[in-house]
Amino acid sequence: MKMDVPALQDFLTRVFPQVADDFEVITMTNSLAKIKLKISEKHLRPGGTVSGPSMFGLADVSAYLLILAQVGPKALAVTTNCSIDFMRKPVSECDLIAECRLLKLGKSLAVTDCLLYSEGDVAPVARASLTYSLPPF
Amino acid sequence: MKMDVPALQDFLTRVFPQVADDFEVITMTNSLAKIKLKISEKHLRPGGTVSGPSMFGLADVSAYLLILAQVGPKALAVTTNCSIDFMRKPVSECDLIAECRLLKLGKSLAVTDCLLYSEGDVAPVARASLTYSLPPF
Amino acid sequence: MKMDVPALQDFLTRVFPQVADDFEVITMTNSLAKIKLKISEKHLRPGGTVSGPSMFGLADVSAYLLILAQVGPKALAVTTNCSIDFMRKPVSECDLIAECRLLKLGKSLAVTDCLLYSEGDVAPVARASLTYSLPPF
Amino acid sequence: MKMDVPALQDFLTRVFPQVADDFEVITMTNSLAKIKLKISEKHLRPGGTVSGPSMFGLADVSAYLLILAQVGPKALAVTTNCSIDFMRKPVSECDLIAECRLLKLGKSLAVTDCLLYSEGDVAPVARASLTYSLPPF
Repeated sequence: MKMDVPALQDFLTRVFPQVADDFEVITMTNSLAKIKLKISEKHLRPGGTVSGPSMFGLADVSAYLLILAQVGPKALAVTTNCSIDFMRKPVSECDLIAECRLLKLGKSLAVTDCLLYSEGDVAPVARASLTYSLPPF
Repeated sequence: MKMDVPALQDFLTRVFPQVADDFEVITMTNSLAKIKLKISEKHLRPGGTVSGPSMFGLADVSAYLLILAQVGPKALAVTTNCSIDFMRKPVSECDLIAECRLLKLGKSLAVTDCLLYSEGDVAPVARASLTYSLPPF
Repeated sequence: MKMDVPALQDFLTRVFPQVADDFEVITMTNSLAKIKLKISEKHLRPGGTVSGPSMFGLADVSAYLLILAQVGPKALAVTTNCSIDFMRKPVSECDLIAECRLLKLGKSLAVTDCLLYSEGDVAPVARASLTYSLPPF
Repeated sequence: MKMDVPALQDFLTRVFPQVADDFEVITMTNSLAKIKLKISEKHLRPGGTVSGPSMFGLADVSAYLLILAQVGPKALAVTTNCSIDFMRKPVSECDLIAECRLLKLGKSLAVTDCLLYSEGDVAPVARASLTYSLPPF
């Protein structure tokens, strides 16, 4: 692993200052990332539910960090595809947890799979698969 | 069509006050919506590029308004699936336009197809297909 | 569980006689199906690789059987969406195994997640998520 | 365009002899392909409907030929992702037509968008987006 939890959290803060405070890296291993989206007013929709773009953003950041942990901070990885299924209404005003697995880390493409949960719940609110393009470096 | 452009814009303002000002309904017909995302600081990432969640959000809102125009403001339509391909870097700090087509409006599911463009550009920056679930009403 | 392995295999034979012999239900529980695609000439492409439609078909049948096991043989479940990532070349002329999990079984939609493997291999050749529509019954 | 309709049809016959006779290239331009799947017994399911794998296969072949027409017959293009929505039941025993557009032709990835129709019908039976990886050559 080329970046550990503090290195990833620090990288987020430097490179994505607008959103870094929203995310907390809970666990990072070679094949699994666990990332929290700390829910605040801006992530909510009427009724206290978490917005679709916020859930997409959590899946995207989780996959990104999982890949960076493997390839290091220099890589200009970009999302090329995301397929996301919204399955259940998130629990009102509850933080979201992404569990993201690395399915493939190729020379030019990486593929990941995420399940999103309302913290403390066992039934996932969404699933997402994301492909990142890894430019030569 | 059950809702025209002013009705849709008004609906957005009442129901999604946090984000309504970001979106402008340019065109709405029975089969095509053209919606603008007015880019501001919060949509950007380092280098002036538009964030992934902002592009997802534009595709999602466009599909939602296209469906609401057909079924009226009472429907609690929810996104069940989105597949999105990010194809090109958006032009720095430029507004984004979604062109969204209605492919199916069934009793319980609606399917749409969106292309996103940097305003004034001809090559799409992203494509997205979205499925909405339409609860009985 | 409303259908066990023999009931599912028998259902396939009666309802899909053209393809039933290609598939073997290895495991079926409330949340996981393990289904084998017995590779023969018709599934192959030049070089001995398994064709894309064959992999899609395996994921589709696996999700279908996993859902039928829960809702019973009367349901006219139909696939509404599939997102599939092809990640590695399958091992030449080797049977394929799908491991398919049930993520949601709602009143009108069911969502599943599949990983496909060349038998005996640990790295998945493809992943797929499928949504089925469950008509009222 | 590096390959015209006869060159593409000939390429299919040489490289994919098992399935070449199923497909007819109707139209090929720089941005649009129109490909027919000639329906026979093997593509059908009970009730005369076209199978999911057959629809997937038509979308996949259409995208492949559209890309080959641009990059020439040497390219080892492989499908990396497909998202497909099944929207309507195909007309019983009727040929299927794919209309496939090229959205991006990059150095390493190509993105396409397909609509599938029962021949003579105006409402699409399915939509699909496919990404191909183009290895360096």
